[in-house]
Parts: sequence; structure tokens; C-alpha cells
Amino acid sequence: MKRTSYIGQLNESNAHQTVILQGWVGRRRDLGGLIFLELRDRSGTVQVEVEPDSPAFAEADTVRAEYVVEVEGRFQLRPEGQRKGGLGDYEVIASRVTVLNAARTPPFELEKGDQVAEDIRLKYRYLDLRRPEMQRHLLLRSKAMAAATAFLDAEGFVQVETPMLTRSTPEGARDFLVPSRLNPGEFYALPQSPQLFKQLLMIAGLDRYYQFARCFRDEDLRADRQPDFTQLDMEMSFVTQEDVLDVQERLLAHVFRTVLGVDLPLPFPRLSYFDAMDRYGSDKPDLRFDLSFVDVTDLFRGGEFKAFTDAETVKVLAAPELTRKQIDELERVAKQNGAKGLAWVKRDGDSFTGGISKFVGEQAAALIERTGVEPGGTLLFSAGEWKKAVTALGAVRLSLRDLFDLAASGPRFHVSWVVDFPQLEFDEETGSWTYMHHPFTAPHPADIPLFGTGRQGEIRAQAYDLVLNGYEVGGGSIRIHDPAVQAKMFQALGFSEAEAREKFGFFLDALSYGTPPHGGIAWGFDRLVMVMADAGSIREVIAFPKNNRGVDLMAESPSPVDQAQLAEVGVEVRPEG
Amino acid sequence: MKRTSYIGQLNESNAHQTVILQGWVGRRRDLGGLIFLELRDRSGTVQVEVEPDSPAFAEADTVRAEYVVEVEGRFQLRPEGQRKGGLGDYEVIASRVTVLNAARTPPFELEKGDQVAEDIRLKYRYLDLRRPEMQRHLLLRSKAMAAATAFLDAEGFVQVETPMLTRSTPEGARDFLVPSRLNPGEFYALPQSPQLFKQLLMIAGLDRYYQFARCFRDEDLRADRQPDFTQLDMEMSFVTQEDVLDVQERLLAHVFRTVLGVDLPLPFPRLSYFDAMDRYGSDKPDLRFDLSFVDVTDLFRGGEFKAFTDAETVKVLAAPELTRKQIDELERVAKQNGAKGLAWVKRDGDSFTGGISKFVGEQAAALIERTGVEPGGTLLFSAGEWKKAVTALGAVRLSLRDLFDLAASGPRFHVSWVVDFPQLEFDEETGSWTYMHHPFTAPHPADIPLFGTGRQGEIRAQAYDLVLNGYEVGGGSIRIHDPAVQAKMFQALGFSEAEAREKFGFFLDALSYGTPPHGGIAWGFDRLVMVMADAGSIREVIAFPKNNRGVDLMAESPSPVDQAQLAEVGVEVRPEG
Repeated sequence: MKRTSYIGQLNESNAHQTVILQGWVGRRRDLGGLIFLELRDRSGTVQVEVEPDSPAFAEADTVRAEYVVEVEGRFQLRPEGQRKGGLGDYEVIASRVTVLNAARTPPFELEKGDQVAEDIRLKYRYLDLRRPEMQRHLLLRSKAMAAATAFLDAEGFVQVETPMLTRSTPEGARDFLVPSRLNPGEFYALPQSPQLFKQLLMIAGLDRYYQFARCFRDEDLRADRQPDFTQLDMEMSFVTQEDVLDVQERLLAHVFRTVLGVDLPLPFPRLSYFDAMDRYGSDKPDLRFDLSFVDVTDLFRGGEFKAFTDAETVKVLAAPELTRKQIDELERVAKQNGAKGLAWVKRDGDSFTGGISKFVGEQAAALIERTGVEPGGTLLFSAGEWKKAVTALGAVRLSLRDLFDLAASGPRFHVSWVVDFPQLEFDEETGSWTYMHHPFTAPHPADIPLFGTGRQGEIRAQAYDLVLNGYEVGGGSIRIHDPAVQAKMFQALGFSEAEAREKFGFFLDALSYGTPPHGGIAWGFDRLVMVMADAGSIREVIAFPKNNRGVDLMAESPSPVDQAQLAEVGVEVRPEG
Repeated sequence: MKRTSYIGQLNESNAHQTVILQGWVGRRRDLGGLIFLELRDRSGTVQVEVEPDSPAFAEADTVRAEYVVEVEGRFQLRPEGQRKGGLGDYEVIASRVTVLNAARTPPFELEKGDQVAEDIRLKYRYLDLRRPEMQRHLLLRSKAMAAATAFLDAEGFVQVETPMLTRSTPEGARDFLVPSRLNPGEFYALPQSPQLFKQLLMIAGLDRYYQFARCFRDEDLRADRQPDFTQLDMEMSFVTQEDVLDVQERLLAHVFRTVLGVDLPLPFPRLSYFDAMDRYGSDKPDLRFDLSFVDVTDLFRGGEFKAFTDAETVKVLAAPELTRKQIDELERVAKQNGAKGLAWVKRDGDSFTGGISKFVGEQAAALIERTGVEPGGTLLFSAGEWKKAVTALGAVRLSLRDLFDLAASGPRFHVSWVVDFPQLEFDEETGSWTYMHHPFTAPHPADIPLFGTGRQGEIRAQAYDLVLNGYEVGGGSIRIHDPAVQAKMFQALGFSEAEAREKFGFFLDALSYGTPPHGGIAWGFDRLVMVMADAGSIREVIAFPKNNRGVDLMAESPSPVDQAQLAEVGVEVRPEG
């Protein structure tokens, strides 16, 4: 016996036909001597009705929730008044119900799965994944992979699988280690990314590379990280930043059109890192809504309000009318993000009341004009060192989004590029310069003369991030292929030639054998799919995720291991303390 | 500047056009004041000619092997008499040569790469991969991945990424272990295959699954194994063996047509395990050539030649005329494969000479008739316990293939299924029954009554292998979904309920919550691509393989690790001895 179709493929053209369906039983109801079964497969759910005199009745009566059954019957419209739209307009009058497998009583009701503690969902993930929402997530993810594969293959990209057992790469996070039995005392590292390998493939002349790459970082798992995750990783030779961005835009548009039927407007808007920070206080601004900072530093210069007069920057955000409680909450957010406080005033006619209103008497007209704050509306100020001031106010901006559902007014998806990241950042703690992306990121050619001067911080990198709805979903750069520029970069980082060699060894050799100009990008694929699916966490779009202790609650992994097994790979567990 | 096209895309339609090309310089020759450069990119090679009065001459004169250059010039036919076919008919008369990057002198000449020691090739893999042959392998592999993805996506398969940090699965090989920093004293295992996870996805109702899955087995690396390798892994619900085989045949045919332009004849022939062994002495027979065993057990029953009279099986293989030296070599092969020797005779008219000819006087006419051995031809005998006898003669058959290039007469590719594997094998060493595939493989329904009887060895599994040119390139089975059958299987294996629970724990739970009938297959993707590319080893179709000590000679991995890094993950290296 075979099904005649998936449930979700049934429609009015099947009315009055005999169908054979296979799937899982959801709810069973017994009513007026009849049995009603919800029958579910990957594609949809339909109601099955078993009448008391049906030859199917005896077997149907044995059926419980999550039994696997095959149903044969007549597909027809439900009586008028009982139609619920879509497949809910129809029912199957069963002539045969065959139990293909019984099921123990599930530990939770699947229909209420979204209210169940996540630990339970993860322990019984194979049941959790039966929920239509989770199936939709996994199907969407698969469709996105297939669409990207088709696009990149057609564009001449070569999918190459890079090693999983390798050595440390310069991402700088902690490695997962794998003891080597054949080489006692030595260890492989699981790759944090294929960064070096994809550059090696360019040196090897592959020209265009892609891979859905599994990456591993042994970090403390904050909300919404996984110890292993997936990048859609790409690299291209003989290209400029424009070439990379162009392919990426067409790729993302293709994926959205194919998977969601959504047309993303091209080209994507671009913001410099400076503008993104200066206007939105984030290098991954959520631009589904328009709210941006207004600079009012000049208004307070030489004034009497000390906190603003001496500040490098004073930014203001025009919010709707806020309660005192809301303002307190926003101040808490600002402080959490590095501000000392959150100054505010409320517009009352042509002047302001509350908060720091006594300091803004002179500036009232200018503030109203520049910010456009409405009567009754609130102005929120952030002042101080530029980066700190805008970062704190950026967090406040996102809180306002959540408070007033500001994103709902905008497009479902907003994509933009953030470009021109700084090449170097000064690390206050160590008192030295460090790279923002990685040490092989190419600077803007025009900025190369700034290396070694007092203006190193102004060097712009040919680096770019892809931002979707306030999430960084991709990032990449053009790489240095000129040994002279690489030397300047190492010098700026304070690496001697010997240190550079120790850190990057064989890769520096490789660069010397004929490296083409090249650049690339990697997408955080889990996060991208999360946003596409409108899911709340990357764990919702990963089939078998770990919890925030790195534990797979279903497989009960990690787990203790036999002494004998450890001895074979040449390690032992370190005694505690 | 941008290239106008890849080199390999140039053809007569470009004649007399100005082209811009980018790539690597192969050989440079200086002749009659001119400079000739071989310019190579991923797609092809073309000759560049730089005349002494060309504005390109000065820069061209700096160019050495493996420099990265951009060339602008006129694409034209070479003078008659110098045309070498294809792109060799053409040349580019350079008006500009721009060095994009210099290169150190490569450690080996790329043109002679196939004669270079493999260790050198692996150490400088980024140079080795520049060779057209290696590029062809990687492109073929990528095309095969994309073609399979497109086919499976269109057929409703869902690509799901299963965990890389997991726990031991029942494949039974040695695991690679990964210490967990967050869970001191505990370890993840890298997956030997996604077997349990793909079955869980069927329990989860995903219906059809696929994945290009990286798999890890810490085995002693024989000739052509890698510690990590790639499976194209698939699983389907509500299917019979016929359904699985049908999809697989169409998938493989699609991949061969798309990637190689080769039409595989469908359906693939099927052999039972018994017939494959009985006729060809292998469960993965190379069927590009026809040579099969002839059974002559009956001819020697009750005869005077003790070695044959008492043998369970006497098989004979009709070979061409062989020298004594060749026979000695084949005997060595037979012995290496478990035989005590290799009996032979040579046909001389209507009788036989040499070898055991004095024992086959009576049987001569029957032997000639049954085997069709030609005058002068040799008969090779294998006698003894059936499996041993056929296995040894199977190895001899392959040696004859290599000796006489027998496969050359057949099709370029021969694909077949081997089916009906035994469900259980008796392990002489332990004196107990063990599974041939894995403990969840479903038996033929008709054979279920044989469990627990003296005929357990006759139970046929619903298991199948895909065989291509004598390589097993895929294998799978229908899985047990009926708890009663699973119980019989565990009993046959001698597992108590407690032992089964300890071994398979959470997976047995999962099976009890509504498991659909399901089955699947996994392709050894590296091996498949190797055969498609006609490469000599899987290392030739893997971008960055390990050597047979599990070492990546380029990245120098594995390597020793800091004490501090080990301390963090809670292990230490075991003192030697």
C-alpha cells in the first residue's frame, strides 16, 4: 500500500476521491458514536471520521495519540457550518484504518508544545520536531540550502569540503580539541571556520569557492549560541569589494524569492560603520523602522550643563510619550550598556518639563526643530565619549522598538550593508592595536599611508557586514594579497616576523607562492534561517541543538568515557582541584 | 580591470577580439627575442606571446613560473602548422602584462606533479591543486554535490544537519573523542555516521531526509581510508526496499548525466549476496567484464582427488593462456585471500596438461563444455568451504582483470545492486551471532520465523549495496519498526533487555513513540567521486586529505598543545609506557 498523496497536497480537485494517507494521529475525539482522528504528516493535517458501522471502526478504536496509521477513505467537503478554511473545509470518511505502529503516551501534548519547558522539548526532540512549526523551520532551512546551492553552482562557485580535523586558526576563540591516537600526545582542533582553507583554495586557483561549513567554538554559551554552528562560506578571486557585494545581493535575493516568495529590493542600502554607529548606535542597526539619533553636541557647547558641555558627543532620540516607569526601565537599559544615566525631558508646548528640563531652556526651540518631537513626546539624551554614548543610546533605541512594536510598521525584512569598518582597534586593556576582523583583512588602498602614523585608528578596512532586521547575518572582507601591506599590518599589530611565522606558519608560506587578489564572506546560516522563519532562537531552526551547558539532553552527550577508551587515545581526565 | 572571460570559455567567436585574462603563469619560454607565457586559470590554458616591441615586454620580462598576472591582448589563431587543437590553436598577442603578485620558485614543477612524491604534493597542496587534473576532480565533486542536491530537493527530501558533537553510535569502529570544558571529565564523540539521527528524523515525521554528512572513524588507516570522510546520507518513511532502490537509481542516473553526460541504463541489475559471492567471489563484484565462476563440485564427488572430493565447493575460473610465472603470482593472491593453494590445468586439445591434470582425466570433457575454456587456456580451481573458496577465487578474478585489462572491454561504468544480505553472521571467534549491517536492519518478513531456530544464518536482511565498477559506493537497509521483531533481533544477538538499553538507551525510547516504517542508504561520496573521476585514490578527490598516519602535512596537524589549553578542557596527556 502506498499513500495517494501527502495530506497537504489534497485540495478540491480530490473531492469525492478515495485517498490513502499515512501519518500520525494527533487528537482523537469520540462523539455521538463516531471517532474523529486528526491525521498529520509533514505537509498538513486533515480530519478523519470513522462511522460506527465502518469496517474501519474496530481498528480505529484502538488508536491513541501519536500512533502511526494508514487511512483509506473518501475525501469530501465537511458539512456547511463546520468548515474551517483550507484543509479544515474537508474530511476523510474512513473505510480502512491500519495501525502501522503503536505509540506510548507522549510526555507532552504536541499541540501545546510551545508552552512546554525547553528542556523537555530537547529531551524528546523527535516528538518536538513533529510539531508543524518545527517542521516548517527545518523545511525552510533545507529549501534555503538548496536554493543557495543552485545559485552558487550556476554562478561558477565550487563547493569544497575543508578539513574537520585540523589545527588552530586565528579566529581567537577557544578550540575544541581531539586527541590523536595515531600520534600520541598530539591533538587536532575542530575548525572555528574554514578561513585559512578558503584562502588556500584561492591560492590554489579554484577561483570561486563555497561550502556549508560546520564550525566549532568552545565559548561560554550565552543565550543563542551553539558550540557548533553552520556558515555558508564563500571566497572569490580577482575581485573587488563591489564584486563580492553584487554576488551576495543576488544570492540573498534568490534565496528569499525561492524560499519565501519575498522580493528584496536591490541594491541593498549601505551604511558606513561610522554612520551606523553615529545614527543608530549599532554596527548592525535594525532599519525596519526609521528612528535615528539627532546630534545636538553643538547646542550645549559652552553651556551651563556640565555633563553635556564637556561631552565629546551629545545625541538625542525622540520617543513617543513615556511613563515614568518606562523611562526608568530605559535608563536601566542605558546603564547596562555603559551609560552613567539617561537624561530626558518631556515636550510641553514649546518648552520641556521634567528630567533635565531646567538645563534645556535656551535650546528648546532648536531641539524641537531638529528632533521633530511631538507634543507630549519624550527626548532621551546620551552624552559622553562618542562610542559609549551612541552604544548606550542604540540599546535604548531597540528597547523603544520592542516597547512600541516599531518594527511592525516597516517591511518584513530589511537588509543593508555596513561597510568601512576600522582596520584596527586600540585595546585599552593591553595598550596595543588589534585587528577588528582578522589579520588578513585588506585596508582601503587610500588609507595605507596611515599605517605607523598617529592616525592608525582611521584606517578603513575593506570589510563588510550583512545586516538583516538588526542581526548580523554575514561578514567578510577583501584579503591582503600584497606581502608589503601584510608586513605593515603585522607591524601595526606588534607581531615580529618570527611571531607572525609562529602564529600563521604554513599559511604565510602559501601566500608567497602566487596569491591572487581575493575576498569573501561567511553567512551565519543558523541566524539567517532564524530571521527568515521568524523564530525566537537559533535552537528553533537546528534539528538537534545543545542547551546552554553544551549538553544534548536527548542523546545525553557529552558523557563519561571508559578508562580503556581514554588510554587508547593517550589522555586521562585531569584530577579535580 | 576585470577579465573578459575565463580562458576556457574562449573560442573561435573571440578571434581578433581584445581580451583580458587573469591567472597563473605556467612555463615561460624565451625564443627569438619573444617571450611566451603559458597562462592558466581554472578553466584552461592559453599561450601568450609578447613581442620585443610590445609595451607589455618590460613587465612580462619580470615574470616567472606561478606569478599571478593579468594579460590584455588580441586573441587570434596561431600560424598554420603550430596549431595543437582546441585552445592550442590560438594565442594571445599581449599589449599589456600586469603582475598582480609575484611567486617564489615552486618546490616542484606543476606539469610533472603526477610524478612527485605524494608527501611533497600534500605539503604544498595549494600548489598541487593548481594542476588541471586536480581542479577537474574538485569541480566534478562540486557538480555532483549540486546535482544530487537539486534532485533530492525536487523529490521532497529535506536536508538536515545532524550533530557533530555527539555520542557513540553502534557502527562499532573507534570514536574520535572531544573533551567537554563545560562538563569536566565528560567527552563528546564525533559521529561515525548520522545513522541514529536520521532514524530519529523519520520518527520525527520528516518523511524524507538527506545530508552530505561528515563522518569520523578512528581506524588504522589502510591504503585508501581517511579519518574523516563524506557520506551522502538519506532516509525515507513509509517505504519498501523497492521505493528506496527506485529513488537511488534515478538519483545516480541524474548525477551521472548532469556531471559526466553519461546515461546509466536503468534499472540497475540486481544480484543476491549469495549469487554475487557464488559467481564472482565478492559482495561488490566488478561486472564491467563477464568472467564468472563455474561450479564443478559435482564432477569430483566420489572421485580420487581428495582435495576436491571432500570439498564443500569446487569452483573453476577459465582464464586465457597463462605463463608459469603468472600462475605463481595468482596462487600468491589466492593464498593471501585465505586459500591453501591454487590448482590449475592447461587445455591441450581435448585434455589437460600441467598442474593437477592427472586428476581431471575423467572430467576433461565436462570441464571443457562447462567452462568453454579455449585451447591453450588455463583453468584455475578453488575448493573448500564455500565462502573461503569463492572469496579466494574472487581475488584471483580481479588479478586476471588487472593482468589482461579485462574491464577495458566493458562499459566505462557498471552499476548493480547486491541484495538479500544475511541478517546474521556467526562469529567463529566469539561463538555468537552478530549483525552484518546494524542491529536495526529489518529481516525479510518471510524469514522472521527462522529467528531462534537452527537456521538463523539463512535469514535474509532487507539490506542492499550499490556497486560501481567493483567498489561498494553505497549501502543501506529497511529498518525494523516493529518492537516484536526488534526483540527477536536483540535476542539473536544475545542482548538482554538491560544490555540493549545500555547500548542504545534513548534511541529505544524514541522507537516506542510512534515509528513509521522506514529505510535508507548512505553513499560513500569520496569513493563514488573517485570512480567517476577515474582517480586512483580518494585522496585525489579530497581537497586537503590526511596521509596514512592521519597527518595533514600542510597544516602540520595534529600537533602538541599547551598545558594550559589542555588544563582548560580538563585532560592531560597520559605518560608513556
